[in-house]
Amino acid sequence: MKQQLHDIFRRRHACHLFMADRALAREDLEFVLDAGRLSPSSFGLEPWKFIVLTSPKLKLAMQAACFQQPQVGTASALVVILAKLAELEPDSDYLRRLMAREYPGDALEPALTNYRAFHAGTDVKAWSITQCHIAAANMMIAATGIGVDSCAIGGFDAGQVRALLKLAPQSYEPALILALGYCAQAAPEKQRLPLEELVEYR
Amino acid sequence: MKQQLHDIFRRRHACHLFMADRALAREDLEFVLDAGRLSPSSFGLEPWKFIVLTSPKLKLAMQAACFQQPQVGTASALVVILAKLAELEPDSDYLRRLMAREYPGDALEPALTNYRAFHAGTDVKAWSITQCHIAAANMMIAATGIGVDSCAIGGFDAGQVRALLKLAPQSYEPALILALGYCAQAAPEKQRLPLEELVEYR
Repeated sequence: MKQQLHDIFRRRHACHLFMADRALAREDLEFVLDAGRLSPSSFGLEPWKFIVLTSPKLKLAMQAACFQQPQVGTASALVVILAKLAELEPDSDYLRRLMAREYPGDALEPALTNYRAFHAGTDVKAWSITQCHIAAANMMIAATGIGVDSCAIGGFDAGQVRALLKLAPQSYEPALILALGYCAQAAPEKQRLPLEELVEYR
Repeated sequence: MKQQLHDIFRRRHACHLFMADRALAREDLEFVLDAGRLSPSSFGLEPWKFIVLTSPKLKLAMQAACFQQPQVGTASALVVILAKLAELEPDSDYLRRLMAREYPGDALEPALTNYRAFHAGTDVKAWSITQCHIAAANMMIAATGIGVDSCAIGGFDAGQVRALLKLAPQSYEPALILALGYCAQAAPEKQRLPLEELVEYR
């Protein structure tokens, strides 16, 4: 398992052009989405929503919102990862429901008080977006594990993405767009700094 | 592989108390760190640094900086994931070196011009932190794959963490602390929203 997992981490790469005529099986797409669903999140709030686009028309419109990056229009499927905003408000039904799940019984009220203080002192949009990156990472690993290529796209016009998906600014913030499909190009050699340059033992 | 990977995503859970007397083999720690190293990042900038703490004294000091969460002091190892800041400045040697690797030859100067505009219009600290969450997610999956438990900790006093690690505020921002070890408690039942509630097909 160790070697297989290491191979997955090594094999995953950002695909910059997909085979536009290859579809992604629904079962494979759901496997990938499920890895996102099972991701950890701060307070267990699952502050993400996944909007899946597969129609050529919507993919091309999204490509225009992503500075015309060709991996967007050629992907078999796009998963637009939205960061929840309104649902993270301390008084929302969603917040209360998920906090009650994580902090059952008598633990709920102190947890809500704690959360209220946290929420007031936090850039909620930035925080929600960070959590979405955890889900994105897990979806990319899941995809690689079943031979599906991916590219995480952070370069987009958030206003255009919201307009295209008809999202009110206070509801969700586009965090990342995950392009999934079958790469039309060979993976380049993986370039990374050596562990010695990244790690410090103290 | 599909089933094994799914099991890993299901098995990973946030451990809130570790067996403090169990050490983590150096080889296993490096396997986990390597998964972080191999993670994707925006512009390929690898904007993370991993500081590993294993001494009881440092772990307890870090626990104090993490609002006394017991998983911090009982973990076999803590990986403090730092978001690079100074190295992401457009004129840093680091930035030029990594951009030259991602955009070789004639592609470099246009890429640097593009990056300069991006950098000026971006909350660099928030952006760098998002990328660190990708590395954290991959490290948690790697850990689970080799039977190592984890907990990602976002609740800490960044000023205290910086003071403890003697970091200048303009150099690095603590993004997440990853506690690694062997859990002293059984994993609770995994609770997640159903896919139907998270996913929308358009």
